[in-house]
Amino acid sequence: MTDIAIGIDIGGTNTVFSCIDANGKSWGNGTIPTQEQERFEDFLNDLCDSIDKTIEDSGEDLKLIGIGIGAPNGNFHTGTIENAANLRWKGLLEISRLVKERMNVPVKLTNDANAAALGERIFGGAKNMDDYMVITLGTGLGSGIVVNGDLLYGHDGFAGEVGHIIMRPEGRECGCGRRGCLETYVSATGVKRTAYKMLAKYLVDSSLRAIPFNELNAKMVADAANNGDLLAMEVFAYTGKMLGEALANVASVTSPKAIFFFGGLAKAGELLFEPVREAMEKNLLFLYKNKISLLHSELGEDAAVLGAAALIWNDQA
Amino acid sequence: MTDIAIGIDIGGTNTVFSCIDANGKSWGNGTIPTQEQERFEDFLNDLCDSIDKTIEDSGEDLKLIGIGIGAPNGNFHTGTIENAANLRWKGLLEISRLVKERMNVPVKLTNDANAAALGERIFGGAKNMDDYMVITLGTGLGSGIVVNGDLLYGHDGFAGEVGHIIMRPEGRECGCGRRGCLETYVSATGVKRTAYKMLAKYLVDSSLRAIPFNELNAKMVADAANNGDLLAMEVFAYTGKMLGEALANVASVTSPKAIFFFGGLAKAGELLFEPVREAMEKNLLFLYKNKISLLHSELGEDAAVLGAAALIWNDQA
Repeated sequence: MTDIAIGIDIGGTNTVFSCIDANGKSWGNGTIPTQEQERFEDFLNDLCDSIDKTIEDSGEDLKLIGIGIGAPNGNFHTGTIENAANLRWKGLLEISRLVKERMNVPVKLTNDANAAALGERIFGGAKNMDDYMVITLGTGLGSGIVVNGDLLYGHDGFAGEVGHIIMRPEGRECGCGRRGCLETYVSATGVKRTAYKMLAKYLVDSSLRAIPFNELNAKMVADAANNGDLLAMEVFAYTGKMLGEALANVASVTSPKAIFFFGGLAKAGELLFEPVREAMEKNLLFLYKNKISLLHSELGEDAAVLGAAALIWNDQA
Repeated sequence: MTDIAIGIDIGGTNTVFSCIDANGKSWGNGTIPTQEQERFEDFLNDLCDSIDKTIEDSGEDLKLIGIGIGAPNGNFHTGTIENAANLRWKGLLEISRLVKERMNVPVKLTNDANAAALGERIFGGAKNMDDYMVITLGTGLGSGIVVNGDLLYGHDGFAGEVGHIIMRPEGRECGCGRRGCLETYVSATGVKRTAYKMLAKYLVDSSLRAIPFNELNAKMVADAANNGDLLAMEVFAYTGKMLGEALANVASVTSPKAIFFFGGLAKAGELLFEPVREAMEKNLLFLYKNKISLLHSELGEDAAVLGAAALIWNDQA
């Protein structure tokens, strides 16, 4: 018999789950669309049906020991999802209680970036670290922070919103209703916005000038930069500088040993990380200089479900 | 017999200590000048002599159970003071080892702001809080952060330098060698610098126009503001706004339940805290709005030694 924890990642479009053993190996997985059901309870029923079926169909002797869930605005303390902008169900969603009632195993919830941070400690590159952070670079910028060996939740369960540090008062409009948040500059969306700003500012030729705003994405900008497009290269220099400045400030608060990156934009690699490293070191207080490693997540494509499952495996350690 | 812990606060001018029991009551105290001896070891000998004498002279049956030390750049992990700008002794000072050898009790070291934060939990207003921070407003701006019930030390023991968050790239020169750090704006020195900036910028009459830079201090600015001096009032509005913006960003990292203030500048009271509160709430991510209390430290004048002694009493709890 093999003990497994289910890791569930609730995304805006799809919800993915996987049966993860103590070594991070997957024994089966599934996907269901997130937003088809009008009632949240119906969505959870479908999800749990799919999990039951996946375990049965595996043909293995799997023993379910718990379920970890990563979800936007997932609150570890209360087990509820609270007013997630990307989900159709509003208000407080008591996901932990409902899943526990149905599945009869411990259920733990946190947000996706916190799950990724814990996953890095249990299954990835942070196995011997007590103080580090994970930055997820996707449509937005998420962060999960580990200090003294534990996730930093804050008094209300919502600590670790580095993407909403205000970098430029009166800066770019953010989806949160404020202006100048880090993620309006440093994210796939931020890269696109910066590209348009640079196209307006400079006269240099660029392949990006042929692409309408609605069609441009960060990957196109990265591809252009890798092909030597000067304007696209400048976009990444600007993005990396902004992130490096922000990380230097966050280091003044938490003093991490390493910062791990994952998500679509992190695939830009040195195009992004060289200016990040340079700006971070330049802006760090002398106490922290040359001490902080910038690393790629070692979790790979399954980071979200591994991280969610780590919520359960962390308690077994 | 009464168990006591010695709390030592090493300042740039004087070193103060006090014999503190489990309830925070002092059973005797002393002061020696910090910088008279050329050798650090000689300073420590005098300090330990003075402690021994104070315990003897008390006439009470006191049992010393440990010594807590708050010092600039004091490193909890290593028990060393590292390159403190305000001390004459440079390099690594192995204070914990040396004091332990002499006194034969457990010795714990941290920086003054961390000590204050722990003191607030053991003896002050944070008794039931697991997530909060303490801001010390003196010549500079120090911070001690508690998360999940423990001090946030970071991987190297130097976390919690909120005073060195860069608020304005290319801003005011800071003693740390960089520019635009929070403490160049929000501290007694920052208030003085802001006063001079405002005197240059505005034409309004002000009693501060009669005072040379070298003689001006933050208390004079506060007194002028309380007397209705418009320019001095504007200085505090600016200072509070800057601090409020910074705290809103720090909240995005640690999500504290409360922020405690102490130090000379904190005595300015609502003159400072009204604009702090307003700017913090205005700049907070919606998740955190109306959740964070801004409070005065309940430790009073003995905050530093109480905090240092709390390093010992915290382990007994």
